[in-house]
Amino acid sequence: MNIIVDALGGDENSSEVVKACVKGSKDFDVDITIVGDELSIKKELKKYGDTSRIKVVNATEKIDNYDEPVTAIKTKKDSSMVKGFDMLKRGEGDGFISAGNTGALLIGATLIIGRIKGIDRPALSPFIPTDKGVSMLLDVGASTNCRCINIYQYAFMATSYLKHVMGVENPKAALLNIGLEEGKGDKLRKEAYEYLKESPINFTGNIEARDIPTADVDIILTDGFSGNIVLKLYEGVAKYFTSILKNMFTKNIFTKLSALMVKGSIKDFKGKMDYTTYGGAPFLGVKKPVFKTHGSSKWKEFYYTIKNLKLYIENNVIDEIKTSISETGGNFSENV
Amino acid sequence: MNIIVDALGGDENSSEVVKACVKGSKDFDVDITIVGDELSIKKELKKYGDTSRIKVVNATEKIDNYDEPVTAIKTKKDSSMVKGFDMLKRGEGDGFISAGNTGALLIGATLIIGRIKGIDRPALSPFIPTDKGVSMLLDVGASTNCRCINIYQYAFMATSYLKHVMGVENPKAALLNIGLEEGKGDKLRKEAYEYLKESPINFTGNIEARDIPTADVDIILTDGFSGNIVLKLYEGVAKYFTSILKNMFTKNIFTKLSALMVKGSIKDFKGKMDYTTYGGAPFLGVKKPVFKTHGSSKWKEFYYTIKNLKLYIENNVIDEIKTSISETGGNFSENV
Repeated sequence: MNIIVDALGGDENSSEVVKACVKGSKDFDVDITIVGDELSIKKELKKYGDTSRIKVVNATEKIDNYDEPVTAIKTKKDSSMVKGFDMLKRGEGDGFISAGNTGALLIGATLIIGRIKGIDRPALSPFIPTDKGVSMLLDVGASTNCRCINIYQYAFMATSYLKHVMGVENPKAALLNIGLEEGKGDKLRKEAYEYLKESPINFTGNIEARDIPTADVDIILTDGFSGNIVLKLYEGVAKYFTSILKNMFTKNIFTKLSALMVKGSIKDFKGKMDYTTYGGAPFLGVKKPVFKTHGSSKWKEFYYTIKNLKLYIENNVIDEIKTSISETGGNFSENV
Repeated sequence: MNIIVDALGGDENSSEVVKACVKGSKDFDVDITIVGDELSIKKELKKYGDTSRIKVVNATEKIDNYDEPVTAIKTKKDSSMVKGFDMLKRGEGDGFISAGNTGALLIGATLIIGRIKGIDRPALSPFIPTDKGVSMLLDVGASTNCRCINIYQYAFMATSYLKHVMGVENPKAALLNIGLEEGKGDKLRKEAYEYLKESPINFTGNIEARDIPTADVDIILTDGFSGNIVLKLYEGVAKYFTSILKNMFTKNIFTKLSALMVKGSIKDFKGKMDYTTYGGAPFLGVKKPVFKTHGSSKWKEFYYTIKNLKLYIENNVIDEIKTSISETGGNFSENV
């Protein structure tokens, strides 16, 4: 198994990516091809002992966050991202990981790799930290004009992923809505509820946004627009609160002393909010495995993404998705 | 000026409402009619000295949160909410405050009182706490199928409110979106951006959800579905963090000691998150002033809502909205 990793996507220099790849290739028994600036990658690799399972492919361009996605994918042919996708397409690797421009990654995944037959729209499916662990939230912006069939398919894709990659036996899926009762919400929510209720999905009904932090669900289903808002607001509020907490403890000698006394609790809290150990977000619905990690990813997030990618491949999640979609897609009329 | 207050709407018994009304009638120089269980209200009133500006109207029914809104408004004719609306309609009061069932309040406001001419949909417009104070967020669920013209009208209504009730000179309005640049988002956001950009509104462009806690804007514009999600997630995450903070400090004698040292900061933080002093949320776009306070409102939130309602009436906000809408509504084609 060979995994392709984009070294130029994130905000960090290649040292974090290289560290993750060296450690990941050993611990998870995979070959890895790093695409990026060959010189700096090779320099980094020298820091480690045996790197025989790591290959390096040079890329002279970088797609950054200011690039317009479609233009970038079509014109930056020697970028690490386009090269990575091309290799994946040609079968020179079994999966692709990048911390790069989300829009460009989605365009690349759709244009170069393509969608699974029967899947209308792929979904970007990150994990968000909750009191009991994490929940997979999808979609968070891969598509902004969402129909009922999309949400329905998200449920099947996420269920396959959680079962086969995360080992969750019977993943619970909830529909994000503005009320708990059936019949709440807009047309999209009402329709989606009806379909999910009748499906083989372990559907637990509606969930309200206020219950996300403490909810006992594995999958939160929503359209890409509101999913993106949930993801970013969660991040924004968490960051804001953490900064308040920090200010609280750094004011003077007494507050610093106080911080020492609750050190363990602060550590627990940080641990709970640290979702890097759950790895990056898969683009579910794409023909081959493509994962997006945070732009600011450190080695640990890449490392766990490599682990998940391996499980994704080994457990044939894509075939699982194909099967579940072909078995259930027929339930849909053209208009929903 | 006479303000009608629903004493049966909230989770609290009438003591909180009565306290707010007695204090509010004096401090803000208004007459108040409390609608609810006459006996218990009069018993509460006896606790205070001069209550000559308070009238009580008996209601034998209560609309609660489990009631289906349309049915409740149509059948519970002797409920405190329907009676309050009827009095407002007949001119026996100048404004109405309730902590009751949001859906029923909206239905009552629309069916019994009616919309301002030219306003397509009223908006429920609460304040959310931010680092610099508060921002008005609208809509948060008064309507779930939102069109461009609605968001456009929200901007004018919120601007009038903030200018004339909160004394904000030139309120800054931002559009909640999944990216900062113009052209981001779904069809609704793209269209709304175009219209807002060309409008007399002090439009500052898109805002991403992650920036809400620290943003320097007065108005956040969005559709009722995503607005409801923002409001509830904000609330949910804040509650979750506060509970973690509490657990952190109550573990043992050392952590309790630690809490003492950061007491001032915790108080500051609680103060910042306490938006009761900003009063309840107006239903903007309704012909007469209708305010919704939290179901769990204590006297302070009712009290400040009375204050805002008085300013709303005194400053003719409804006329201001009418004027701004009739001057600008013509910019719209039928289809947006």
